[in-house]
Amino acid sequence: MSGHQETPPGTPEVTRLLAQWVVDLEGKDIPADVRREGLRTFVNWVGCAVGGARHETVDAALRAVIPLSGKPSATVLGRPERLDPAHAALLNGITSHVLDYDDTHLKTIIHPAGPVASALLALAENRPMSGEDFLTALIVGVEVECRIGNAVYPHHYDRGWHITGTAGVFGAAAAVGKAIGLDCQRLQWAFGLAASQSSGLREMFGTMTKSFHPGRAAQNGMMSALLAEAGFDSSERAIEAPRGFASVMSDKQDWSEILGDLGQRWEAALNSYKPFACGIVIHPAIEGCQKIREQIGARVADIASVHLTTHPLVLELTGKRTPRTGLEGKFSVFHSAAVALLHGDGAPTAFTDEMVNDAAVVDLRDRIHATADSSCHEASVTVEVTFKDGSTMTQHIERAIGSRDVPLTDAQIDHKFTVQSALVIGEAATEKLLQLAWRSPELSDIAEIARCSSEGAVSA
Amino acid sequence: MSGHQETPPGTPEVTRLLAQWVVDLEGKDIPADVRREGLRTFVNWVGCAVGGARHETVDAALRAVIPLSGKPSATVLGRPERLDPAHAALLNGITSHVLDYDDTHLKTIIHPAGPVASALLALAENRPMSGEDFLTALIVGVEVECRIGNAVYPHHYDRGWHITGTAGVFGAAAAVGKAIGLDCQRLQWAFGLAASQSSGLREMFGTMTKSFHPGRAAQNGMMSALLAEAGFDSSERAIEAPRGFASVMSDKQDWSEILGDLGQRWEAALNSYKPFACGIVIHPAIEGCQKIREQIGARVADIASVHLTTHPLVLELTGKRTPRTGLEGKFSVFHSAAVALLHGDGAPTAFTDEMVNDAAVVDLRDRIHATADSSCHEASVTVEVTFKDGSTMTQHIERAIGSRDVPLTDAQIDHKFTVQSALVIGEAATEKLLQLAWRSPELSDIAEIARCSSEGAVSA
Repeated sequence: MSGHQETPPGTPEVTRLLAQWVVDLEGKDIPADVRREGLRTFVNWVGCAVGGARHETVDAALRAVIPLSGKPSATVLGRPERLDPAHAALLNGITSHVLDYDDTHLKTIIHPAGPVASALLALAENRPMSGEDFLTALIVGVEVECRIGNAVYPHHYDRGWHITGTAGVFGAAAAVGKAIGLDCQRLQWAFGLAASQSSGLREMFGTMTKSFHPGRAAQNGMMSALLAEAGFDSSERAIEAPRGFASVMSDKQDWSEILGDLGQRWEAALNSYKPFACGIVIHPAIEGCQKIREQIGARVADIASVHLTTHPLVLELTGKRTPRTGLEGKFSVFHSAAVALLHGDGAPTAFTDEMVNDAAVVDLRDRIHATADSSCHEASVTVEVTFKDGSTMTQHIERAIGSRDVPLTDAQIDHKFTVQSALVIGEAATEKLLQLAWRSPELSDIAEIARCSSEGAVSA
Repeated sequence: MSGHQETPPGTPEVTRLLAQWVVDLEGKDIPADVRREGLRTFVNWVGCAVGGARHETVDAALRAVIPLSGKPSATVLGRPERLDPAHAALLNGITSHVLDYDDTHLKTIIHPAGPVASALLALAENRPMSGEDFLTALIVGVEVECRIGNAVYPHHYDRGWHITGTAGVFGAAAAVGKAIGLDCQRLQWAFGLAASQSSGLREMFGTMTKSFHPGRAAQNGMMSALLAEAGFDSSERAIEAPRGFASVMSDKQDWSEILGDLGQRWEAALNSYKPFACGIVIHPAIEGCQKIREQIGARVADIASVHLTTHPLVLELTGKRTPRTGLEGKFSVFHSAAVALLHGDGAPTAFTDEMVNDAAVVDLRDRIHATADSSCHEASVTVEVTFKDGSTMTQHIERAIGSRDVPLTDAQIDHKFTVQSALVIGEAATEKLLQLAWRSPELSDIAEIARCSSEGAVSA
């Protein structure tokens, strides 16, 4: 049966024009500030991938995948296991997202690096490429997924799609397609294959399958490009066709978000990096509590109660009063605030099963309350502490760290990298890897990063 | 961010109840006529998989996949290449659908065997199982995908989803999950993983990516079951949740289609087998023209013109007047009728590039006309032939072969199997394979079928 339908008059050739832009782009066309943000995106991703490498989700995935893997020619970052590049892409996409600690394109809530960098670095271990070429392809992939996300957000996300998976597969296809030098038609096919694998439901949040989404997007995007390279054809208008990605999976299709100002407006420059290992809406509260702690020191033991005034989304998404597991703790602003006050912590160590069930944390948590205030900005919070002697202290955060207005500094990215990576591969290997990652633009073989990440790795 | 939403009151626990049924079912619970149809489904699928094995689509897929494949422990039917079981599932899903000649669940237009049998037979080459157990799992998988398809059809299909891919992944997960003995909770996780990989757009019809869909559904469904087995968790209500498969991907959700009369009403018994290698709507016209040919013999040279009276869908879906390629020929009722009149052929040989451009075929094709008649049943046609001497002949088909009312006989399945398989692996190997396939219920190791299919295979 035919699936072909004419596109409505006036619809631009979105898939072809986007593919042509990817093909034509040269590294020197990317402005220096965008390249710098691409490097920060990559460094942050490496830290997250290593940081998540020992999670039980990764162990489970490896148990299933190892018996099926081809030649072990690509690294699972931060682990001793090696897999074929497609399975390594899957695993690194899982590890880098499993702690909910990765990067965020705030306009779409896409976590851009997972699908793209996971595919690209695994490929680079088999088809050597320089750090410069790698970063060019990485930035192109991030740009493609974020633009496609913009074109359908928020309607697509509201319908229930996990946009990191659904848009991410296009980013991975673009990055790998760029790296292997697909021509325009084959890149259109790769986008077609990506569109026909675009998937991932928000229903899976709170389960291992959430981090499966960026992993599978990386693997599927890579396969889309490799199949197209081998002559496997597909629709050449998969994004804009009446039965293409945007119309089937969204009520909104804004083609100008994809095609407008290509090469001038850079979504890849708008990437942000989570300072804390949980949903971004909790971040202001954590920062506010950390600032209180810096001021009161040991008086934290004298806290009688805490009151948070937050944006309504905070309670809607993270209003869990009695989390039982580390994962549930990520969805509890009360737990997160308690740990920040007691330990100053917002790293993955704040969201372990042990920490969530720690008696002191639970005791303080139950004395933390919150009010939703629709006049409160998403990046703001007011924390009011009442001490046992009746005195009070107030801390207001106008724009939290990690928000668009207060991006993480390089030093803060270093700190985040170190804190999580050292737990997995130790401090010495972490320091070496971090320095190497910043030196990516100078490397003649970017795969050095992948190999370095597993030097300090031990079997689970 | 949380994706969790409560299910509306009154929503049954669809995923859990379906999984529990799969887990509890024993082979002896399946009525004899349903088991028999399961065997016919399998025999027909083996013939189609071998028949499609040398298609250029398969060559392209193999070029991309071989470098990534794990241990070559599973067969690409009808070919000498062996792959790891997940990639073999992908390839056999492609081969068995690539000629548009496979089976059809007429209520949903799902082609059920591709996703399910491709996954299951590749698995069986690595985890030995008897023919009886294989057929039980096959029937369970077909039942699951068709019931899930019924629950969302036609709204889901109308939105642009290729339902063989989107529903097929659940069938593959169910079949593999049954075969490896998942418990209820793990099968629910497998359904969750399947839901998060459910994909495939109708926009891809007419390209290689169409047959990629059942292949990827087979591979993804297998991976869903294997990941769940390894402890990779997922939503346990992925089908019915507000952000689950049915609500995100369809405007219709009829849970009774999934849960009603489980074990009593068998969708797997309603499978049908295409007598001709093209879209099912053309089948009445081909049969009508074949019947004319049987009556007129050499007088076919005296035909002045032909007039077809058909259901409107025939011209809507297959109204292509001047096809240029074999694939386009499948979407031309005019080409199909011409070849049936000249050669009596509706097999894959009728839809080659050569046949589509054959001078005699083109000459007759241009003298064939058609009228859409909304009072004409989808399985009916009237063919009127006018000869050069002015005389006429009329052939009416009330219900075409292959329709619900006129199922293919076993002998017709044999003929279909032989015609396509012999072109790929030769007549002797075909005869041996066909006999072995019918003997599946007696086999202690069903993988014998896979091995036998490649005995006569040669490299492309």
